[in-house]
Amino acid sequence: MLKQNAVRPVVKAIPEPVLRRLPVYYQYLRKINLEQSGEYISCARIAEDLNTLAIQVRKDMAITGAAGKPKLGYPIRELIKAIEIFLGWNNTSEAYLVGAGNLGSALLGYQGFKDYGLNIVAAFDASPDKVGEEIYGKKVLPVKKLPEMIRRMGIKIGILTAPASCAQELADIMVNSGVKAIWNFAPVKISVPEGIIVQHENLASSLAVLSKRLALLLAER
Amino acid sequence: MLKQNAVRPVVKAIPEPVLRRLPVYYQYLRKINLEQSGEYISCARIAEDLNTLAIQVRKDMAITGAAGKPKLGYPIRELIKAIEIFLGWNNTSEAYLVGAGNLGSALLGYQGFKDYGLNIVAAFDASPDKVGEEIYGKKVLPVKKLPEMIRRMGIKIGILTAPASCAQELADIMVNSGVKAIWNFAPVKISVPEGIIVQHENLASSLAVLSKRLALLLAER
Repeated sequence: MLKQNAVRPVVKAIPEPVLRRLPVYYQYLRKINLEQSGEYISCARIAEDLNTLAIQVRKDMAITGAAGKPKLGYPIRELIKAIEIFLGWNNTSEAYLVGAGNLGSALLGYQGFKDYGLNIVAAFDASPDKVGEEIYGKKVLPVKKLPEMIRRMGIKIGILTAPASCAQELADIMVNSGVKAIWNFAPVKISVPEGIIVQHENLASSLAVLSKRLALLLAER
Repeated sequence: MLKQNAVRPVVKAIPEPVLRRLPVYYQYLRKINLEQSGEYISCARIAEDLNTLAIQVRKDMAITGAAGKPKLGYPIRELIKAIEIFLGWNNTSEAYLVGAGNLGSALLGYQGFKDYGLNIVAAFDASPDKVGEEIYGKKVLPVKKLPEMIRRMGIKIGILTAPASCAQELADIMVNSGVKAIWNFAPVKISVPEGIIVQHENLASSLAVLSKRLALLLAER
């Protein structure tokens, strides 16, 4: 389970944009070939490669508690570790995915999550056609088993990839069974009791922004 | 291709949060069974079902140019149409997807995009193992054919699902061949010339926010 101690007082104040940038540094740092690059990296170099400002890199890194050395920069391995610990990615969280349709299957197959401490251990679906299937090695279980399985496994994260029409009902089931955080890919806002975390993703909304901006751009010409 | 005329002057000023909410209304409205619900819907009803405020619904709808009738509310069909036209979803845009890995395949299989006027017509990949495959009925073509194919088909939208290490190179190829908007799922910021649109998605960043918030929540107990 996720746990965070040492940096807690600092953490409370971190703005979301910083949290969103840390994974980008992390992914970048992990791709560096240490034999070719040497053990250290400067803020300037990170900034150049990631197309941002050195001062922002320095500030963001300071939040994780990582310290650079004068003239050398940051020790790459320690920096990776600092970000991992800061984000809680050094401890793997187990999650259930609810709704094994197109997007759900996609997420089940997305290898990237493992690097970020998220392990989707099983999927649930209401459709008898899907139950019993294996998707990327993950079993699809009947949704009626969800409450019992959440309790038994002590699952705290639910990934909701069900249709809008049943999203709220499934969210209620998850929360009532002990889930504390819902990553909601269903195209509808869901209500949860205070103290439960919901993070909403909507690809359609992103696409709306993109296509509107493109329409404006093409209309200008 | 996307086109926008009538509402252009208004459009310029729309804030991104509004653009992000419109698809949520759209998805909700399209799921309504008109025979059961009647032809009209009120702001209050939409707000209740979507867990938001009626005044916000009213303001958002006004931006699309849709007009409600006193005591009746909005004619549902017209409202759907107004949002479609406003977002440019009534005209289908064709897009190429570059990088047919896990996430790329997932997006190829995501049926939802069709409803939002996005048609991914082909995928491209550098790996000879993937070239020639069909993923959800879409052909995977060699990435060296990308420039020629973008020009020939007049493609304006590129969906970038390649690894971070080659994202910039692929973005350059796309832009040089005529792509005007890149939907970037690669975990790295990309540079593009002025006037080109980039919309960045990063699931790892979302997950970072979620897992950090969960860690804080669990630490509080």
